[in-house]
Amino acid sequence: MDKQFNEVIVGFGGMGNWHRELIESGIDNLHLKGVYDIAEAPCRKAKEMGYHVYESLDAVLADPEVDIVLCATPNDFHKDIVIKALRAGKNAVSEKPVTLSSGELQEMIDAANETGKIFTVHQNRRWDEDFLTIKKIYDENMLGEVFNIESRVHGSRGIPGDWRNEKVHGGGMMLDWGVHIIDQMLQMIPGRIKSVYCTTTNVTNGEVDDGFTLVLQWENGPRTLLEVGTSNFVELPRWYVQGVNGTAVINDWHLNGKIVRITNWEKNDAIPIKTAAGLTKTMAPRTDETIATEELPIVHSDIKDFYRNVMDAISGKAEQKIKHHELMRVMKVMEAAFRSAASGQVVDFE
Amino acid sequence: MDKQFNEVIVGFGGMGNWHRELIESGIDNLHLKGVYDIAEAPCRKAKEMGYHVYESLDAVLADPEVDIVLCATPNDFHKDIVIKALRAGKNAVSEKPVTLSSGELQEMIDAANETGKIFTVHQNRRWDEDFLTIKKIYDENMLGEVFNIESRVHGSRGIPGDWRNEKVHGGGMMLDWGVHIIDQMLQMIPGRIKSVYCTTTNVTNGEVDDGFTLVLQWENGPRTLLEVGTSNFVELPRWYVQGVNGTAVINDWHLNGKIVRITNWEKNDAIPIKTAAGLTKTMAPRTDETIATEELPIVHSDIKDFYRNVMDAISGKAEQKIKHHELMRVMKVMEAAFRSAASGQVVDFE
Repeated sequence: MDKQFNEVIVGFGGMGNWHRELIESGIDNLHLKGVYDIAEAPCRKAKEMGYHVYESLDAVLADPEVDIVLCATPNDFHKDIVIKALRAGKNAVSEKPVTLSSGELQEMIDAANETGKIFTVHQNRRWDEDFLTIKKIYDENMLGEVFNIESRVHGSRGIPGDWRNEKVHGGGMMLDWGVHIIDQMLQMIPGRIKSVYCTTTNVTNGEVDDGFTLVLQWENGPRTLLEVGTSNFVELPRWYVQGVNGTAVINDWHLNGKIVRITNWEKNDAIPIKTAAGLTKTMAPRTDETIATEELPIVHSDIKDFYRNVMDAISGKAEQKIKHHELMRVMKVMEAAFRSAASGQVVDFE
Repeated sequence: MDKQFNEVIVGFGGMGNWHRELIESGIDNLHLKGVYDIAEAPCRKAKEMGYHVYESLDAVLADPEVDIVLCATPNDFHKDIVIKALRAGKNAVSEKPVTLSSGELQEMIDAANETGKIFTVHQNRRWDEDFLTIKKIYDENMLGEVFNIESRVHGSRGIPGDWRNEKVHGGGMMLDWGVHIIDQMLQMIPGRIKSVYCTTTNVTNGEVDDGFTLVLQWENGPRTLLEVGTSNFVELPRWYVQGVNGTAVINDWHLNGKIVRITNWEKNDAIPIKTAAGLTKTMAPRTDETIATEELPIVHSDIKDFYRNVMDAISGKAEQKIKHHELMRVMKVMEAAFRSAASGQVVDFE
């Protein structure tokens, strides 16, 4: 029989509950052993659900049956909890953003290296099917050489009115959503980043960024634009990818979108566009005579593979999928982006 | 009776013919006196249409009945023709881009000042109704304070295969379309530009830019993004404008679009979005309970006002609408954009 892995969720808010649901939906060999939260209400809720609720973090770490500590607290607590867990001989999985700076992250990595325990981060958006579909289009060169990739996440609710509003807790959209879409882009594009240019917004929040636009220039790769907005009452497409021979778009979370590809470079199908003040042939949309519209090659995924990999990594059967150097690189991109936004200048990178 | 103004079109290609059509559609007091082109085919065509075709530019300038010389040649000829026309005592209207550099433009402005003749440029896109509609939304604060304006012109035909391909003639999309959308933005936003960041593309053309993305940061104004693309098989919206209370979008040349505005900040209508790998409340689209979708306040225009203004300016009845310092500022933004693209850095401005 395979070993059973016992997990405890530390921090039983929105994401803590998301992990509970995922584990309870059934992942072979993974068992939810209990819950801990510093606040009373989530503890009560967990008890009502029938879970064992620990008295303290120390009680979690003292329980010899606990294999994995999942840290889903506000962002500024991740570091201390993860390091404590590692030093207590536990494996640690942190919610994202792993922590607030590359210096803090290095402390966490050092603790993992010293203890030999697994430390990784729930970069769950690597399993999002919109990302995997775009990655397939990119990897398989379905548009010809890709020269531009735009990844946008737009909402219109501002920042959630909890600790995500506050700098001290690691609030702001760069750390909340930036960490996902940067991680995705770094997974997709090989090679070195040359430079970082970022502007941030403070529309609904003066303390932390409530959105940003980040341009990464690569040594040998497409221009990439990453944008998060929380005052976008009309959303621009989630993904917009341009290759020499076509364009791919994913409009929304439901993977509505399309590929439009050239079928005939030779034929001139331009019907000039007349506006009130002028005429353009250059910008006349193509007709069906020279392009084809195709369905997206949707890639499916199983987020349970995240935990399967964590267990395999603990058992030494596989490398951990979300690696320390990847976490560090994302963190350094975010730090460079903040420096760029503060100075108004392009920041050289790598 | 009002004075009649006689115009000669120099350069009888696409835009020359556009001016012919406009004048022939009837503008009070404006008469098309003739045509001149260095090439035989357009001269023959003009003759067949029944127009007087001049033997040479000198013959145009020697004709005492000519009031206005319209220069619709390739871009690198504008300067010499305009200066010659001014020195011959004619008023000169140039197609855009007025010329290839701010130094050359200064020579043209100097010639106008010395001769006291009118020299202006056909920045026809100031009359485009998409621009005027967005300007109204901005001027009348219909979205609350505007913090971001994006102006995009997307096509998928590359650069037209004539002189627009060639650097020596002032080819490339910055000079072709950039000059329009920069001019529009500078008409819309008051105050000083702080910085310019630009990237260019060379997808279908190695010699000149076949597209660009330009970010202008203003001292007291919204972030503005200006983009031209010629390998966009799916177009992003022509205009995308974000205010604190709503978003306005114009999707295409036909002015399809909408305004979406908040109606209720208090009510929480978030229905969390579940994807394959996660959940988001922050990015859940709003429902009709808290937003309203409204029609665009379309502004209509009459491009004939361009020539009416030219005639009024010649008569001293009005200031010319398209002014020398405005032309110079657009030219300097384009030069800063090219510097930024070449260096990969942000260029300080004004």
